[in-house]
Amino acid sequence: MTPGPVEVDPRVLRAMSYPVLGQFDPEFTGLMNETMEMLREVFMTGNQWAYPVDGTSRSGIEAVLVSLIEPGDKVLVPIYGRFGHLLVEIARRCGAEVVTIEKEWGTVFAAEEIVSAIRAHQPRLVAVVHGETSTGRLQPLEGIGDACREIDALLVVDAVATIGGVKVATDEWGIDAVIGGTQKCLSVPSGLAPVTYNGRAEAKLLKRKRIERGLLTGDEAYDPAHRPILSNYLDLSQLQDYWSPARLNHHTEATTMLYALREGLRLVLQEGLEARFARHRRQEAALVAGLEAMGLALYGDPSCKMPVVTCIEIPEGVDGESVRSMLLDEFGIEIASSFGPLKGRIWRIGTMGYSCSKRNVLLTLGALEAVLLRHRCKLPAPGAAVQAALDAYRTD
Amino acid sequence: MTPGPVEVDPRVLRAMSYPVLGQFDPEFTGLMNETMEMLREVFMTGNQWAYPVDGTSRSGIEAVLVSLIEPGDKVLVPIYGRFGHLLVEIARRCGAEVVTIEKEWGTVFAAEEIVSAIRAHQPRLVAVVHGETSTGRLQPLEGIGDACREIDALLVVDAVATIGGVKVATDEWGIDAVIGGTQKCLSVPSGLAPVTYNGRAEAKLLKRKRIERGLLTGDEAYDPAHRPILSNYLDLSQLQDYWSPARLNHHTEATTMLYALREGLRLVLQEGLEARFARHRRQEAALVAGLEAMGLALYGDPSCKMPVVTCIEIPEGVDGESVRSMLLDEFGIEIASSFGPLKGRIWRIGTMGYSCSKRNVLLTLGALEAVLLRHRCKLPAPGAAVQAALDAYRTD
Repeated sequence: MTPGPVEVDPRVLRAMSYPVLGQFDPEFTGLMNETMEMLREVFMTGNQWAYPVDGTSRSGIEAVLVSLIEPGDKVLVPIYGRFGHLLVEIARRCGAEVVTIEKEWGTVFAAEEIVSAIRAHQPRLVAVVHGETSTGRLQPLEGIGDACREIDALLVVDAVATIGGVKVATDEWGIDAVIGGTQKCLSVPSGLAPVTYNGRAEAKLLKRKRIERGLLTGDEAYDPAHRPILSNYLDLSQLQDYWSPARLNHHTEATTMLYALREGLRLVLQEGLEARFARHRRQEAALVAGLEAMGLALYGDPSCKMPVVTCIEIPEGVDGESVRSMLLDEFGIEIASSFGPLKGRIWRIGTMGYSCSKRNVLLTLGALEAVLLRHRCKLPAPGAAVQAALDAYRTD
Repeated sequence: MTPGPVEVDPRVLRAMSYPVLGQFDPEFTGLMNETMEMLREVFMTGNQWAYPVDGTSRSGIEAVLVSLIEPGDKVLVPIYGRFGHLLVEIARRCGAEVVTIEKEWGTVFAAEEIVSAIRAHQPRLVAVVHGETSTGRLQPLEGIGDACREIDALLVVDAVATIGGVKVATDEWGIDAVIGGTQKCLSVPSGLAPVTYNGRAEAKLLKRKRIERGLLTGDEAYDPAHRPILSNYLDLSQLQDYWSPARLNHHTEATTMLYALREGLRLVLQEGLEARFARHRRQEAALVAGLEAMGLALYGDPSCKMPVVTCIEIPEGVDGESVRSMLLDEFGIEIASSFGPLKGRIWRIGTMGYSCSKRNVLLTLGALEAVLLRHRCKLPAPGAAVQAALDAYRTD
C-alpha cells in the first residue's frame, strides 16, 4: 500500500512468463504496435508517438527532457514537492537555464499562477509534475498548455503517479509530452516508462537530428551554437525510428517487460478509464473515512488532494518507523514514509491500480488500528475505522 | 538461435511471476545484495561495484561512458564491427574527442596494435568491444589494461555478447569497467545492463560528483572547465549510492527484472563458469562441423572466431531473407541477418546460454538443410550435416 511499486495483477505476472520472442519477429512487432495503440487510449491522445522508453520512469523523464531541451534553453519548473526538484536537476544536466517558482509542500499552484510565470519568464519549455507522490497533491493543468502555445513553448508533464488512476487528458489539456509510470496506477512492474508526444515536440526532435548528422567532438559539442541530443540511449528521435514501421535497430526491446505492459494496458482498457478513475476515488473516500474515524489528521490542503495517495500526519509521540515495521512484519502491509522536510512527519498510503481494492483498504485500516493500539495511541473508538469505511462504501 | 535475444530458461521466466516487493523492503534489498555478489563472480572480479543499470545493454554502455568521459577527453576506440561504431557515437555525445583505429570486418586487432595506438594517442579512456556480434569476432584483451595503466587511462570493455558464455576476466586483464548483456549468454530477458568497475573508475566518478555539487546552468554547464556528469538516470555515482547500504533513493528498481537476473546468475554459477564456457565451445564445434558438411563457408578469420556466434556466407544465388523466413515459419527457428556492409551477405547463428544445447544445434542443422534443399541449393550429401554434428559430439 505504498505509492509504488504496487501489487501487480497475477495476469500481468503470468504474461511475463511467456517465452522471449526475437525483437524483429513479426509476432513481437505486432505486440509492439498493439501496445502503442493502447497507450494512445490511456494517454487520451491522438498522437502518433506513444511508446515505452526502456528504463524506469525516471528514464522517460530524462529522455523527454534531454531530447527537447537544447543547452541554454530557458526552462520553467513549478515546484511543489520532491519530484519538481528532480525535474530541475535533470533539466540542468541537459544544460537548461532553469527558472523555478515554488509553493509550500502540501499545496499546489493555481493554474493562473503558472500561466503568469510563463508570461513573465518566456521559457522555451515548461516541465511540471501532475501528481506529487511526496506530498500527495494533484496539480491542475488546464489552461497551462494554451499559455505555452502563446509563446511557442513546449509543455512537459510528469504523470508518472497519475496515469491509469487519475484523468490525464493529453490532447484536451494541450500537453506536448507526457511521461507515465508503470509501477503505480498501471500496476505493471517498474522497468518501462511510457511516453507520448505530439507534432510540436517531434518538430524539435527532427530539427536536432538534422544538426547531429555532422556530429561534433570535444569542446565544440558543447558550443551552444551546436545542439545535438546529448544521449544516444534516451534520444527520442532514434527511439521513434525503432518504434516506426522502419524498425531501425536501436536497443533490444525489453521483451518481457513489454508483455507485462501490454497485459497491464489491456486490463486498464477492459475496466475502462472512467470506471477505473471512479474506483480510485471510491477507495480513497473509504480510506479517508476510516483514517478520520481513527482520529488521524490528513496532511496537506484537501482541495488539491491526489486521489491515489493519502498522507497522514504521524501522531505526536508515535515512532512512525516502528509503526511501519510492525505493519510489514505482522500484517505484510507496506506503507511509505516521505522525503526531505516531511521525513518522519507523515505516512503515505497508496491506493493505486491493482492494490486499490476494498479488501486492501479494509485490511489496511484494521491493521493500522491494531498497530496504533500496540503503540499505546489513544483512539477515539477502537473498531471505528473499519466501520466508517464500510459506511462509506454503503453510501457510495 | 540469433545472437540475442535468446531463449530464457523456464526457471528464469517463472521467477518473473513472483509478486512485486517494495524497493526498500528488506527482503528485496537482500535480493539486490545477492545479485551483486553473484555478478562479482560472473565478472571474475573483486570489485566492490557490480550491479545492473535499469535499461537494455546500451544503457549500461552509456552509463559507463557518460560517467567516465569528461567533455573534451580524448577517447580511443578500436573498431572492427558495428558495435565499435556505437561506442564512438556514444562517446562523441558525451563530448569526447574520439580517436579511432579500424580493422576490416571479419578480423580483430592484435593486442599489440591497440597497445601501440594507446602509446601513440595517449587517450584518457579506451573503449573496446570484446565480442562483436555483427561479425562474430572475439577481440583478445590481454595486455591492453597494462598499457592503459602506464598512461593512467581507463579501459572500458563492452562484454555484452560474451559475459556468461566466454571468459571475461575483469581483474586478470586489468579492465576498469565492464558492461555485460542479459539477453545473450546469461539468457535473461533484455532490460537490465550489469556493469562492474574498479576503484580507478570510481575515483573519477567521485571527483566529478564533487564538481557537480555546485550545478551550473545554461552555457556554463558546457564549459569544459566544469564537467559534471550530463545524465541523472545513468549517473553511476548516484546508482552506486542506491546500491550501497545507504540505499539513497534514485529510480525504483525494476523488481521483476531483478528477480530474473538473480535467477539467471544463480543458474550460471550452479553450472560453473568453466563448465559453461566448455559447453559453448562444444556446441560451436558441432554446429561448425555440420555447416561445413553442408558445404557452407564460414565468414571471417577463423583464428578470432567468437565461440557463441557463427557467421555463414550466404551461398551465391540464394535469397538469404527467404531462407530466414522459411526457417521461422516452418520450423520456428530464428537466425539473424547482419548490418551495414554485411547485410544480405551473411547469416548469423547464436549458440548462447540456454539456447546453446545439443538439441537446438541438431534441429537447426536439420532445418537449415531442409530449407536450403527447398531453395534448390546443391548440397554435397543431404543428411550429412546432422551426421557430422553427431560425430563431433562423439569425438568430443
